[in-house]
Amino acid sequence: MISKKMENMVANSSAIRAMFEEGNRLAKIYGPENVFDFSLGNPNVPAPKAVKQAILDILDEEDELVLHGYTNSNAGYEDVRQAVAESLNERFGTAFAAKNITMTVGAAGGLNVILKALLNPGDEVITFAPYFGEYRSYVNNFDGVLVEISPNTVDFQPKLDEFEAKITPKTKAVIVNTPNNPTGVVYSEETIRKMAEIMEKKQNEYGTEIYLISDEPYRELAYDGVDVPYLTRYYANTIVGYSYSKSLSLPGERIGYLVIPDDVKDSETLIAAANVANRILGFVNAPTLQQKVVARCLHEKTDISYYNRNRETLYQGLIECGFECVKPQGAFYLFMKTPIKDEKTFCQEAKKYNLLLVPGSSFGCAGYVRIAYCVAYETIVNALPKFKELAKEYQLG
Amino acid sequence: MISKKMENMVANSSAIRAMFEEGNRLAKIYGPENVFDFSLGNPNVPAPKAVKQAILDILDEEDELVLHGYTNSNAGYEDVRQAVAESLNERFGTAFAAKNITMTVGAAGGLNVILKALLNPGDEVITFAPYFGEYRSYVNNFDGVLVEISPNTVDFQPKLDEFEAKITPKTKAVIVNTPNNPTGVVYSEETIRKMAEIMEKKQNEYGTEIYLISDEPYRELAYDGVDVPYLTRYYANTIVGYSYSKSLSLPGERIGYLVIPDDVKDSETLIAAANVANRILGFVNAPTLQQKVVARCLHEKTDISYYNRNRETLYQGLIECGFECVKPQGAFYLFMKTPIKDEKTFCQEAKKYNLLLVPGSSFGCAGYVRIAYCVAYETIVNALPKFKELAKEYQLG
Repeated sequence: MISKKMENMVANSSAIRAMFEEGNRLAKIYGPENVFDFSLGNPNVPAPKAVKQAILDILDEEDELVLHGYTNSNAGYEDVRQAVAESLNERFGTAFAAKNITMTVGAAGGLNVILKALLNPGDEVITFAPYFGEYRSYVNNFDGVLVEISPNTVDFQPKLDEFEAKITPKTKAVIVNTPNNPTGVVYSEETIRKMAEIMEKKQNEYGTEIYLISDEPYRELAYDGVDVPYLTRYYANTIVGYSYSKSLSLPGERIGYLVIPDDVKDSETLIAAANVANRILGFVNAPTLQQKVVARCLHEKTDISYYNRNRETLYQGLIECGFECVKPQGAFYLFMKTPIKDEKTFCQEAKKYNLLLVPGSSFGCAGYVRIAYCVAYETIVNALPKFKELAKEYQLG
Repeated sequence: MISKKMENMVANSSAIRAMFEEGNRLAKIYGPENVFDFSLGNPNVPAPKAVKQAILDILDEEDELVLHGYTNSNAGYEDVRQAVAESLNERFGTAFAAKNITMTVGAAGGLNVILKALLNPGDEVITFAPYFGEYRSYVNNFDGVLVEISPNTVDFQPKLDEFEAKITPKTKAVIVNTPNNPTGVVYSEETIRKMAEIMEKKQNEYGTEIYLISDEPYRELAYDGVDVPYLTRYYANTIVGYSYSKSLSLPGERIGYLVIPDDVKDSETLIAAANVANRILGFVNAPTLQQKVVARCLHEKTDISYYNRNRETLYQGLIECGFECVKPQGAFYLFMKTPIKDEKTFCQEAKKYNLLLVPGSSFGCAGYVRIAYCVAYETIVNALPKFKELAKEYQLG
């Protein structure tokens, strides 16, 4: 009875659900403290205290009808968008105004909005493996075609030769995600410059516009002072999708924004289209109370030192076990090479040690697993002996 | 540069924007108290006090990580869904469980979720004019075809003969909206019974399933004790889309739910599909704080007496002016026949008196205008002399 497009997706989702239920089952048998669930990207660092204070202040200070009402524009409150624009300008030397900001239902909402605005059926959207698997669904929602660039497993920077070769006259957009889910790798400034050059060249060659969509919910989660280039500064046709899910630990509240700079070709029309898409896709506007909250918390930061300690401990521990992995520079994921090619079998094996991991094929990169380390520190400490046993099984270390 | 599907929509949205800006322009010239904006369905009765108290209590009582985190299921918190189900069972004698409830980003989000779950390209969705114009876009989002049943301008109950005639093997869904936007009419129990009979008959004839989608954000806004039948009790394949936008005056917060009862054909698969659709359309889950808020405010009611006074005053006033309209039984809209066929010209004329109205053609019913009376009472009192002058222009009264 359900739509054909949904049939496969429902089957896949049953698999994810099965994994989730397996986790619950194991927790019942062994106790939750003995099950090491590294499968979810749900932050375990609470929202900064300022978030609660902001809610209390807003409830006291704002007119309820405005606070809980539809916003005049589907793009959100003018004052909130102005505040977001100014904060970006301050940090990145950009020159955005309120009109360049569309508040969205998280980054997932924002990506759907911009793809709805841009894609005709058959349009191609390029992304670089490994990538967040939901991009497949988002592009498919609008009958676009997701074109994958194969993973560069040396350092997980994008393969630029293959990128250039796969751009066609049908290429409408390129999605990048840096810091990256699932590798934690940050694309270097050199990478970004070269990507921009390639896209400029191809735009000229084909007489097309190629929009670079920067999906950056992990921007603020970067370690060791690594620089995360702000992409609108390198390439004119850049659109930024942002979420406060990780930076303020508010993933359930569904609050983020799109930036559509004036430099983008036909930016006014695209901004208008994004507003309409926000409405007709059923978002209507980003949740209003949370719009006001983030506007008051633009200078707040999550406790990144917590994630950093997890990162160091997990990375060192895994290396000592003999596993092979690239040290993540950002986000809260570690992408580990599996000692056998078939990483799904490895995940099954890991489950025997109550280690729950996600197969790399979910991210377009088999032979790897994703370990989400946005968990309690103790979970990592207690899981490492299990990883050690697992490694021994494969004669590592 | 934008997608072809969006081009017309952006053009239309410019027209709405122009109207909005015209209202602002008039307000600057004449003062906002002398501009009578009846164009928007934004409640002017504040949220019940219990909403603020619920937020404060939740902030004190709930674990922040759970409160602002992703929900375990894309359908929302289990306890919230259980509370919603129990409240419906109590009120309507139904037998829903948590699994039958999917929390959504308002009713607009819910409708998109269920249409995504159901529609293949070319599937037909029937609705009854006049209807909420956004249905066109929602159905178009999934390449469905919206089939309109022409308006019955006698009492605005649906034309059932035409309905029966227009059901085809491609009919996948029927959307009803009662209390109705824009007429305020409540479909009678007799109407609902007959509709159900017709759909049962056609399902048998074609060997298909026809899903009745009841879009009911105005359920609690019914006057004079009129009964609003709960549709799952009349027809097995009924799905309910609800929103707290009007009942708790929270339209900006984007919180509502879908009910997919066990009686619905293949309900388990459809529930699973709705959860996946919630995720991949970018909603992910309904905003978490607001989920918790509505669960604590299930017995709260908006101040319907305010809208009722507006309704009585506006209806009596317009009748006395000589205008023709069906008295609304619910919602906060009044649908008035225009003294000339071309209601767009009438709207232009009304604007000379600073009366902002929406043409009926936006709702698939020319020759009428929608007057949203969710405004301050004073606005209605002060607008009536203007309506009187407008009526005189057309030799009414």
